[in-house]
Amino acid sequence: MSRELRHLKSLENARRILWEALPARLREGRFSGRPTAISEAVGLALVEDVICPTDLPPFDRSIMDGYAVRAEDTFGASEGLPAYLKLVGQVVMGEEPTISLSHQQTAGIPTGGMLPTGADAVVMVEHTQPWGEDTAEVLRPVAPGENVVRRGDDVKEGEIILSAGHRLRPQDVSALAGLGIAEVMVRRARVGVLSTGSELVPHTEDAPPGRIRDMNGPALQAAVRSHAGEPVDLGIVTDEPDAIRSALARGLTGVDLLLVSGGTSVGVEDVIREIIDSLGEPGVLVHGLAVKPGKPVIIGLVGEVPIFGMPGHPTSCLIIFRELVAPILRTECPERAGAQETVEATLTRNFASQAGREEFLPVLLEETEGGYAATPLLGPSALISTLVRANGLVRVPAAAEGLYAGDDVEVEPL
Amino acid sequence: MSRELRHLKSLENARRILWEALPARLREGRFSGRPTAISEAVGLALVEDVICPTDLPPFDRSIMDGYAVRAEDTFGASEGLPAYLKLVGQVVMGEEPTISLSHQQTAGIPTGGMLPTGADAVVMVEHTQPWGEDTAEVLRPVAPGENVVRRGDDVKEGEIILSAGHRLRPQDVSALAGLGIAEVMVRRARVGVLSTGSELVPHTEDAPPGRIRDMNGPALQAAVRSHAGEPVDLGIVTDEPDAIRSALARGLTGVDLLLVSGGTSVGVEDVIREIIDSLGEPGVLVHGLAVKPGKPVIIGLVGEVPIFGMPGHPTSCLIIFRELVAPILRTECPERAGAQETVEATLTRNFASQAGREEFLPVLLEETEGGYAATPLLGPSALISTLVRANGLVRVPAAAEGLYAGDDVEVEPL
Repeated sequence: MSRELRHLKSLENARRILWEALPARLREGRFSGRPTAISEAVGLALVEDVICPTDLPPFDRSIMDGYAVRAEDTFGASEGLPAYLKLVGQVVMGEEPTISLSHQQTAGIPTGGMLPTGADAVVMVEHTQPWGEDTAEVLRPVAPGENVVRRGDDVKEGEIILSAGHRLRPQDVSALAGLGIAEVMVRRARVGVLSTGSELVPHTEDAPPGRIRDMNGPALQAAVRSHAGEPVDLGIVTDEPDAIRSALARGLTGVDLLLVSGGTSVGVEDVIREIIDSLGEPGVLVHGLAVKPGKPVIIGLVGEVPIFGMPGHPTSCLIIFRELVAPILRTECPERAGAQETVEATLTRNFASQAGREEFLPVLLEETEGGYAATPLLGPSALISTLVRANGLVRVPAAAEGLYAGDDVEVEPL
Repeated sequence: MSRELRHLKSLENARRILWEALPARLREGRFSGRPTAISEAVGLALVEDVICPTDLPPFDRSIMDGYAVRAEDTFGASEGLPAYLKLVGQVVMGEEPTISLSHQQTAGIPTGGMLPTGADAVVMVEHTQPWGEDTAEVLRPVAPGENVVRRGDDVKEGEIILSAGHRLRPQDVSALAGLGIAEVMVRRARVGVLSTGSELVPHTEDAPPGRIRDMNGPALQAAVRSHAGEPVDLGIVTDEPDAIRSALARGLTGVDLLLVSGGTSVGVEDVIREIIDSLGEPGVLVHGLAVKPGKPVIIGLVGEVPIFGMPGHPTSCLIIFRELVAPILRTECPERAGAQETVEATLTRNFASQAGREEFLPVLLEETEGGYAATPLLGPSALISTLVRANGLVRVPAAAEGLYAGDDVEVEPL
């Protein structure tokens, strides 16, 4: 192992150090609560119990089209000996009935209609026959409460409808809508994303000669979103220590995690390291990984907020996101980011690797007659083209000195 | 089979009729294109090829910290016999260098810095030594182009970067940002959601006596979103035919699918059927399913837009969404909605079912010592409580007349 690799942590060690230092809140996915419209909250976990604010249904309702009755008036009715009830009105859907039923009276009622005062049951329309304009012929008896949902039968005021930690499903949205609860507090990781680099301009702007557009900011925001997190765009700052310091200090407020990418210029990595240490305890936990790409990674913790100094190289940056940041977000939404399945493939070219550090090799995975072929995509000379062509990653273990054409490799599809 | 069931289609038949009538565009997931910010487009498919608008990198860049040189000036250099080059300046990150190198001259250059005119290679700082204030000692030779990415080496103007149909990944976002492409046209199903019912008020409002809040609108919107679709809220209309007709006619514009829920009042189902037939060819394809819950379902097609008349009952509505609508949306985003896995469980209670129609039974799935237990959740008297308690569905085949306590059943987790 070369001297320069000796102080670097393996990815596994770094992950262990990070996980042990991580506040329990984050380890368990208890991210910041955010008020969210119910129809946008599916898949997210509730911060607190949802209590039923009112009896449901809020009034006695019919569950059939038919006639509202006093059940006792139908006792003994049959096809041979129907009960004849005086039709005193019609309940209109969506309106509070003004009718009140006395002995031997009835009113037409639609499914979902509110039961008029005096009524305690509904006879299905199929079990009646018209008999003149103001009489209904009832052919079967009903018991009190039949074809009726009583106020509070469904849920009673004060009952817990959904418990804290429950992840919302469409049917829960339906229930919440019925209760008139339009917003809920759900857990969603807020992840600050800051890019540093005097050469950077926003990706929405033209880059004058000598400058380039920020790629890591938008890519990290996309990666956060695809793990159900909420990115907080902290913009771009120059490589000056004061600019970085104040952006990080500001960025710490109100986020669960903070990502700062860039720092490719000489010395900026150490500047970021010093700033993290100065912002609060415990400060930097890991500086430098025995991983290629990813050597310049910094992992810090300021109070309860983990800060990740991400590599400036776009591929490295996203690989480190995947290996170190995504597992934290995944605790929130496991079903959206399950364990990575691998594909077995045959390597098409030799690939030299430095022993002593783990390496992630972007490959082009292609189907062949016999199975899959993986072609290494290498070199800083193919930055964007590598990004878009790579559809797999091969992990080269730290002990290996390389891979050979014809080797069987496990490829994680990208 | 009872007479009323004879004209009803099985779910399987209805799905086949729908799929055969579906425009190829929808069958293949080619939904409407929507301009979308790149960091919000991960997982969605491109409508068109993305063409590289410019050479990348846009200028010759150094990939190392070191010294920009004319390679020929370093030929033959070694630790024993270094080359001495005149230091004429320092390239500053993010600025176009004003320096121009002549024979035997060099300039300091950071990683990512723009190569000054005259230079064709970079010597890594590790292979140099300072030698006074204005001289650099070069200990190793470099070949022309070494440690340099030339303009266009990565991607050339006019090349296809990403092809139509490609589903964006975070690394593609990185590439697009580098190219200054801030928005892309991606396919996203636009699904109109209309609720009908004179008794309905928006879920954000208080319901006066006799009226209830719309539950299906927000639930369907949530279901659309959780299948990567974009819901279009068409609001609530009363049960009057003219109101429904104009809302449906308006709603058809600019959507890929249209969902109309409700119509529980007598006759509204037939009204919706007539309206769909009058709006355009081919009109109603299926009316009525031999499925419980879900009998009142209408499936229509007006021009290229499928219209679904959904049951008003919230559980039925979401089950029909799952069985008929979700498979269409799923073509767009298969990885977000894979085939449903089932859990084997023991039924805890008898359950009577009508032969001749398939039935979906909501259950409470609980872990027991030996495995899982499934308890049927029944009855219109427990609407919201059933919604939130149900965490599984059991399919009861059309031929079955019921299930018995102790039966082994396959439960689809909700």
